[in-house]
Amino acid sequence: MMVIMKPEATLDQVSRVLQEAGNNGLEVRVSRNDTRTVIGLTGCKREDLFKRLSEFPGVEEVVLMSHPFKLASREFRPQKSVFCLGGVNIGGEKVVVMAGPCAVENRTMLLETACAVKEAGASFLRGGAFKPRTSPYSFQGLGEKGLDYLQEAKQKTGLPVVTEVMSPEKIIRVAEVADILQVGTRNMQNYSLLEAVGRANRPVLLKRGMMATVEEFLTAAEYILSNGGSRVILCERGIRTFEKMTRNTLDVAAVPLLQNLSHLPVCVDPSHAGGMDSLVIPLAKAAVAAGADALIVEVHPQPKKALSDGKQSLTPDKFRRMMKELSAVAGAVGRHI
Amino acid sequence: MMVIMKPEATLDQVSRVLQEAGNNGLEVRVSRNDTRTVIGLTGCKREDLFKRLSEFPGVEEVVLMSHPFKLASREFRPQKSVFCLGGVNIGGEKVVVMAGPCAVENRTMLLETACAVKEAGASFLRGGAFKPRTSPYSFQGLGEKGLDYLQEAKQKTGLPVVTEVMSPEKIIRVAEVADILQVGTRNMQNYSLLEAVGRANRPVLLKRGMMATVEEFLTAAEYILSNGGSRVILCERGIRTFEKMTRNTLDVAAVPLLQNLSHLPVCVDPSHAGGMDSLVIPLAKAAVAAGADALIVEVHPQPKKALSDGKQSLTPDKFRRMMKELSAVAGAVGRHI
Amino acid sequence: MMVIMKPEATLDQVSRVLQEAGNNGLEVRVSRNDTRTVIGLTGCKREDLFKRLSEFPGVEEVVLMSHPFKLASREFRPQKSVFCLGGVNIGGEKVVVMAGPCAVENRTMLLETACAVKEAGASFLRGGAFKPRTSPYSFQGLGEKGLDYLQEAKQKTGLPVVTEVMSPEKIIRVAEVADILQVGTRNMQNYSLLEAVGRANRPVLLKRGMMATVEEFLTAAEYILSNGGSRVILCERGIRTFEKMTRNTLDVAAVPLLQNLSHLPVCVDPSHAGGMDSLVIPLAKAAVAAGADALIVEVHPQPKKALSDGKQSLTPDKFRRMMKELSAVAGAVGRHI
Amino acid sequence: MMVIMKPEATLDQVSRVLQEAGNNGLEVRVSRNDTRTVIGLTGCKREDLFKRLSEFPGVEEVVLMSHPFKLASREFRPQKSVFCLGGVNIGGEKVVVMAGPCAVENRTMLLETACAVKEAGASFLRGGAFKPRTSPYSFQGLGEKGLDYLQEAKQKTGLPVVTEVMSPEKIIRVAEVADILQVGTRNMQNYSLLEAVGRANRPVLLKRGMMATVEEFLTAAEYILSNGGSRVILCERGIRTFEKMTRNTLDVAAVPLLQNLSHLPVCVDPSHAGGMDSLVIPLAKAAVAAGADALIVEVHPQPKKALSDGKQSLTPDKFRRMMKELSAVAGAVGRHI
Repeated sequence: MMVIMKPEATLDQVSRVLQEAGNNGLEVRVSRNDTRTVIGLTGCKREDLFKRLSEFPGVEEVVLMSHPFKLASREFRPQKSVFCLGGVNIGGEKVVVMAGPCAVENRTMLLETACAVKEAGASFLRGGAFKPRTSPYSFQGLGEKGLDYLQEAKQKTGLPVVTEVMSPEKIIRVAEVADILQVGTRNMQNYSLLEAVGRANRPVLLKRGMMATVEEFLTAAEYILSNGGSRVILCERGIRTFEKMTRNTLDVAAVPLLQNLSHLPVCVDPSHAGGMDSLVIPLAKAAVAAGADALIVEVHPQPKKALSDGKQSLTPDKFRRMMKELSAVAGAVGRHI
Repeated sequence: MMVIMKPEATLDQVSRVLQEAGNNGLEVRVSRNDTRTVIGLTGCKREDLFKRLSEFPGVEEVVLMSHPFKLASREFRPQKSVFCLGGVNIGGEKVVVMAGPCAVENRTMLLETACAVKEAGASFLRGGAFKPRTSPYSFQGLGEKGLDYLQEAKQKTGLPVVTEVMSPEKIIRVAEVADILQVGTRNMQNYSLLEAVGRANRPVLLKRGMMATVEEFLTAAEYILSNGGSRVILCERGIRTFEKMTRNTLDVAAVPLLQNLSHLPVCVDPSHAGGMDSLVIPLAKAAVAAGADALIVEVHPQPKKALSDGKQSLTPDKFRRMMKELSAVAGAVGRHI
Repeated sequence: MMVIMKPEATLDQVSRVLQEAGNNGLEVRVSRNDTRTVIGLTGCKREDLFKRLSEFPGVEEVVLMSHPFKLASREFRPQKSVFCLGGVNIGGEKVVVMAGPCAVENRTMLLETACAVKEAGASFLRGGAFKPRTSPYSFQGLGEKGLDYLQEAKQKTGLPVVTEVMSPEKIIRVAEVADILQVGTRNMQNYSLLEAVGRANRPVLLKRGMMATVEEFLTAAEYILSNGGSRVILCERGIRTFEKMTRNTLDVAAVPLLQNLSHLPVCVDPSHAGGMDSLVIPLAKAAVAAGADALIVEVHPQPKKALSDGKQSLTPDKFRRMMKELSAVAGAVGRHI
Repeated sequence: MMVIMKPEATLDQVSRVLQEAGNNGLEVRVSRNDTRTVIGLTGCKREDLFKRLSEFPGVEEVVLMSHPFKLASREFRPQKSVFCLGGVNIGGEKVVVMAGPCAVENRTMLLETACAVKEAGASFLRGGAFKPRTSPYSFQGLGEKGLDYLQEAKQKTGLPVVTEVMSPEKIIRVAEVADILQVGTRNMQNYSLLEAVGRANRPVLLKRGMMATVEEFLTAAEYILSNGGSRVILCERGIRTFEKMTRNTLDVAAVPLLQNLSHLPVCVDPSHAGGMDSLVIPLAKAAVAAGADALIVEVHPQPKKALSDGKQSLTPDKFRRMMKELSAVAGAVGRHI
């Protein structure tokens, strides 16, 4: 059950709801959603309490929830969310394409790639400065220097930036450059990080854990929302299955499923999902046909020399081809690129 | 290694190849592909033997194979296969839609559904007479009577028929009605059945096992091809993962992957993949956008009363909408419905 | 709901139950369990019908079932089943070890292995004459000749035999040699085969499908039981997961879980589960510690030369060591080997 | 390749190795293992460099590695590691049992449980003060207060404590109470946290990610070791599969596999693996039979009233029974409890 207080509700009115909940043995979690207080109550499904609370002063509405996520749900916000980030609307009619290298490797390659993806029609520049790598002996990203290069590329091309943040203490620094903070697949249930990005209320691209259910994914988004974050983009990037030929298995059904369950925009990462450049374009088309609001794609000027994820990176040429072919598919489903 | 004999090769010439292979300690498997003999050799990668066999009389070509499947591979047949079945080309420019009820439940509902899907533009009628069901206490299909109804619907609508065969001794009977024999997901590695349908050389829609890798799927097709079958359609229908909200996880990447590895046409079943009617249309679009050659879709006049798979069946109305919306997506990828 | 008729119930009494069920719109499935008729009813949970049927003449008991399997359940038979097969009790205090080569490769190796496993304390000889192989180009077993060798080994050693049957028409022939018919993992949902072995009422070792849930596994056993089979041994052999180092993942929890849910004996195959000889002994110990009633283990005199599954086969020496070490573990859980 | 310097190697000698590696285009990672410097080199397998480096002054040994983890491997340290933590040897002959509630709920229940598990023979007290929960609306643990209660229970019973740490900034505080810091399954690839606990060089119980392969698990341990941590215990706690009846699937084969690949002690969590109290004892026995060095088990005085994980918690009575029964199994494999 979720009690949504009126924007003008007083502290005293909130307290009375909390007291009533406590008297009924419910677990309580208070959060602020935009301009109002929302009180999540768990441990009860009694009809009478539902009605009684609805009539408390300051209460706008009491909503029964069918899922463990609340603020992320369509029940809470029936209209699809559209966020304007870096001057780009995400969740609207345009399918937003974010592109760039897996990792920022050096200044030249980043600027070169940024210009190429901008020219081909990308709306956002992606690129990792801090890279979570399975092995401690792999290239871990350029760190601070990588952020500087991203800043320069942003100024040169005018493209807003999405880049990963791996720990709470880096949020402020990364957000100086990033228009969207990416939380990676390995950190989808790193609750310290989720709470911190929520409290910072910066836009977040939340990647689905590689073995997370759709419900867990939305409940991870709920951690951000219930801590004050208001702009979360959900990113399906392939899940782990027994199939060995592809790096992961793109769960394309998650796109309409997430959109049915939640008001948040849905992005797809066809590069990590397939793990091979030959699969990126067909998977990108499938994602757009299934209704994705955004794509995040790895592009590298010389994929064979990439320090990470070369196998799955498109050349700028292939990226241009992708944009052209996607445009037709987007049109076929009433969208544009 | 695979030795492809000339069409006019003599039995003696074949024997000499076999003898040479035996002398080199190789495992041998002989099969007839269309009009010629093909000899699969395993257990060796020696350069010299490869060259020597190439020069044997009667040998057209020796091919090195990088996968356990051979006749199904692009290496063996670089051109995409197009089969004309029941007057319909599968694997060509047109995306072929097969539609109908999960199970043939009675005469009236079958005829009604057949007319509806025909009118909406389907090219094939699907419907199960013999139903493999997880529980022995569930409805197992009408059997022979179901086949009779399918025959009648075929005559009434002119639609060719695809229906499942579950055991070798039923092949001849089912093939009297069916233009395509379906081998179901639970039987993908039922080798007795695969060999029998191969020997009967009837067109087969082979469904991917719910736990099968792409390599195992193609190797199952190889069982049919190496036993004389020449027309196999591969059908991706979702694989089993940890995700609980959907019945299976549609592996949409399997579509381009299968097409890269094999010359055989690829079909997608969006009904079983998602397991919910609300997911069928987005998944069908994703499949077509990713390059699927055919779709097989469950349609039922009254899904809530269906004896099986009601939850995932489209009403005729929704099916009509699907066909219309798919038409645009097909156009966007250079195909038509 | 399941209606268990008295042994002496008349056909007329059975008919009256069926009629009542039909009048109430229930789906009906009749089966004979040992000496009595059992009627499975699905589609209803009404209290009144339950009571009314309990009082019908000829009815011994009406049982409410919480699972889709009935005859396999503990609710139906609370006592653990013990089967005496080939003179050996399975399901009793002794942990029964079945051992031998993956495939019968030739007469000498089979006799040699049979003597070795007998001497080391095995109670059953295993060995495949008909081998289901992923590739049609792999060794498919010696077939009839393999059965002859098994017959000879059985006579020489006195060990009863368990061997695989792959198609209904082979059941009679295989059962001339085999004391237990094995139904392999790929055929766990080959319903034609399950029904046929059920009707033949021969003892069956049913292997769990590599991606079957415990519920599906027991429901597959139900196909055999509801068709007249009365002696089914459930065999956990590892399931398919994302882990790549092992061939499969032994689901050791399935042992106590199956025993809680079902009265049927539970066997474990540590050879296929791990896929490496170094894991066979620890997995065998884990299985016995978790309560397994039987083990089925691959032994080969020269694993490196085996035509199939060499990597996971024990040498006779290691098998002897396994038996010795298992004896202590069995003792620790109140069993013996 | 890994270059192990002598304990007395000078900074200059280390530099010369690094320079040589750089000249050969290798990626370099330097770490200190106990009292010496270890240099990991990746990107090369050349024989000549291997030999040349072996003869550099200050170099003790150059080791070729077959896995992405090095310091965690048996190749690096062939002898099994035994750590003395809180006065208890882990990795030795004794199977160490850690027990206690999932979460510290209040002072009374913790003290009561601690006394009960101590009396039944547990060697460590477990209990969560900070709880990572899937939902932000679930009980998140008592935090600081929970640590205080753990401290008191430790003093009262003399049992050393293992408890979870969720973020780098809490390490120092948690380590004031905890003899072992637990890193939970959701944080197995939270590299900021792994690096921080490594640098703090506190003993760590690292839980396997619910979706992690054995190789990824060991590579996560490598993050701790290569940052200065020297005492890591690997904890298998069940992986995520398609099976729905159990919470996770205990990968019991991981126990011998990890021990073959690594010198680190291996612990098993039968409570989270099965997710039901009826499975805890059989899984604990299976783990010990397979060679586990430790167990971590949830015990709660009133499981039905537990704020988390009640379903899988043992009562003190059942825990006593478990300890008794485990004692026999441990004896059967040459260990004791």
